[in-house]
Amino acid sequence: MAAMRSGGTKRAGGSGPRIGIVGGGQLARMTAVAAAQLGCAVHILEREPDSPAARLAAHSEVGDWNDPAVLRRFAAQVDCVTLENEFVDATSLAAIEEAGLPLLPASAALARVQDKLLQKQALTAAGLEAPPFRAVETPAEARAAGADFGWPLVLKARRNGYDGKGNVTVRSAAEVASAWRRLGGAPGRLFVEAWCAFEAELALIVTRAADGASVVYPVVETVQRDHICHRVRAPAPVAPDVARRAADIGARAVAAVGGTGSFGIELFLAADGRLLVNELAPRVHNSGHYTIEACACSQFENHVRAVLGLPLGSPAMVAPAAAMINLLGAGAGSGRPEGLREALAIAGAHVHIYGKDRSRHGRKMGHVTALGRTLAEAVAAAESAADRIRFGRSA
Amino acid sequence: MAAMRSGGTKRAGGSGPRIGIVGGGQLARMTAVAAAQLGCAVHILEREPDSPAARLAAHSEVGDWNDPAVLRRFAAQVDCVTLENEFVDATSLAAIEEAGLPLLPASAALARVQDKLLQKQALTAAGLEAPPFRAVETPAEARAAGADFGWPLVLKARRNGYDGKGNVTVRSAAEVASAWRRLGGAPGRLFVEAWCAFEAELALIVTRAADGASVVYPVVETVQRDHICHRVRAPAPVAPDVARRAADIGARAVAAVGGTGSFGIELFLAADGRLLVNELAPRVHNSGHYTIEACACSQFENHVRAVLGLPLGSPAMVAPAAAMINLLGAGAGSGRPEGLREALAIAGAHVHIYGKDRSRHGRKMGHVTALGRTLAEAVAAAESAADRIRFGRSA
Repeated sequence: MAAMRSGGTKRAGGSGPRIGIVGGGQLARMTAVAAAQLGCAVHILEREPDSPAARLAAHSEVGDWNDPAVLRRFAAQVDCVTLENEFVDATSLAAIEEAGLPLLPASAALARVQDKLLQKQALTAAGLEAPPFRAVETPAEARAAGADFGWPLVLKARRNGYDGKGNVTVRSAAEVASAWRRLGGAPGRLFVEAWCAFEAELALIVTRAADGASVVYPVVETVQRDHICHRVRAPAPVAPDVARRAADIGARAVAAVGGTGSFGIELFLAADGRLLVNELAPRVHNSGHYTIEACACSQFENHVRAVLGLPLGSPAMVAPAAAMINLLGAGAGSGRPEGLREALAIAGAHVHIYGKDRSRHGRKMGHVTALGRTLAEAVAAAESAADRIRFGRSA
Repeated sequence: MAAMRSGGTKRAGGSGPRIGIVGGGQLARMTAVAAAQLGCAVHILEREPDSPAARLAAHSEVGDWNDPAVLRRFAAQVDCVTLENEFVDATSLAAIEEAGLPLLPASAALARVQDKLLQKQALTAAGLEAPPFRAVETPAEARAAGADFGWPLVLKARRNGYDGKGNVTVRSAAEVASAWRRLGGAPGRLFVEAWCAFEAELALIVTRAADGASVVYPVVETVQRDHICHRVRAPAPVAPDVARRAADIGARAVAAVGGTGSFGIELFLAADGRLLVNELAPRVHNSGHYTIEACACSQFENHVRAVLGLPLGSPAMVAPAAAMINLLGAGAGSGRPEGLREALAIAGAHVHIYGKDRSRHGRKMGHVTALGRTLAEAVAAAESAADRIRFGRSA
């Protein structure tokens, strides 16, 4: 059987719909749990064996997810294919659709999102505001953009950036050349964006059904550390007008790229109160992990519902406030945390450990969510538990 | 490797603790999800391949769970063994402990619970009230008990009864002989209990840690149909004094048998307000499924915490009310439900489909939980969703 490749395993998946997920990290893992609840069997396609999601999936397969033949074979075994990351090339994924098999989001939507320059163009064409941006084909063009937009300037890779990787903040024209080299600059690879002095970083999840109906989760505040999401507060402590505008922008952004399923939308709240779109992720998103405990229907369950064409569930919060703290590897070491016992003694802390084999510095190893009557209460519980957990030893 | 038996599969389980569960039905499946959240790898031992839990487990093994050698081999691969049902003989399970491997609950506790006569004796010895009961070795002794206790009388198998199987209500002395035959009566096999005219059937979950600390979930009202749990309302609409007494009885009952982990306690609320213990189940229980969405820490997560020696989480409800409706097979057919789309359109309904391959009449195929500001609101949402789902065709 084509599915039985090296490192793969097979088990009967039961009688429910089969969902194929390209990628086997924690996002696929949490999606797999939501899918199982609805009686679905999940198939995982990963490049490495023993991914966090494979352990909770009916089937897992190891293969090159950029190989159209592998993708087609994978898709032929399931009722629909979806993704947990944006690094699988949309052109390769189109092979699934060309074979008449369902891919959600569609490759056309993924193409519009994966290339951040095309993404920005699609969003601004839809009337959404973003920091000024421009394609740059040479370092000289980047320097010229800096002269126009002002310094600092953000030099960005069009593809495959995440958690700060693929972005360099350039403080002056003199720094352009080294930033260009660091990002592997070449014609068609980079663009620049004006630096945005934001008051706060906000984010929200929107789940959009294939028929265009969408549900919008509360806008949250995100705090990054070293470009990685550290803390989420839900709902964001912003004026109702800001929350309303964020919700509107989120729904319009996902519609603008023709997305299906759960998407993460990152926004800047500027000092003058404007909301600028920073980035769109065509998948469930770290800023939406809190929805597992805090919302009537999580971003994961709604993603499953959307790709199966089932009615979407309510994104309403079931508590006044929630906080989520990421658990990052402090260094190289085991994927088994120290301090779990102490963390679980904190009342109301929901601890999620992703079961990764190894910790690395900055690697996402788990997260903690807590609900509260107030943001302060939720943050206190989540931070108190998160502070007790450690993965690996710091250098 | 000893674990790799016919029908088994193996995958790397990550770096977390390994929990072995004997039994692979929906109770093990929901426990496996809770275990995965804490970074544990679950191993399943089942008699048949492709069990609902095996699909969410890192490892699954097919074998005879009453064979001490199989149990010892299974236990040697994990950090602790627990059970999802009470049908695995405690004497066989003792082989795990004799090999120096951890079994929770302990075989001594299971022995006290599996034999319902011993269970009743342990509970009443601890000062808890139960309907009058008596061992009967012959039909004549059963008729004599009926003369003492009055008719109807309940004739019960000491072992392996569930969902009404193993119980016969005998209306008169003339019916004893046929009931005796139906239950395979023989010396040491049966006992009788006085019929209890209850106002309501109540239940609660208690999770007890190895050190004797326990958390007590809210007492709920259960409604049976054809001896199978149909509906649960949480909390039970009873006077605060009844709820308090039920909580006290629950904690004392689990302590009386020396239980570790989540236990289900079924109670009768008599017309005069007395609470009588009906039955104890040494495992997570159908009456506690609502805790997944309705409580800060579910019966499943607390079971995992208890068997790993981790601090127990709060059993407090996160909403004023919750209702749970079981989804039973209407007849033989697919394990894939009809009407899922319609059910998911009901706001606030949490639909759980167990992913069983086949439906049979009365088989537990899934359940629906809904939260609400009132019991009426929760029941309306849960019933509305459950009414739309059908497994198999009724005859």
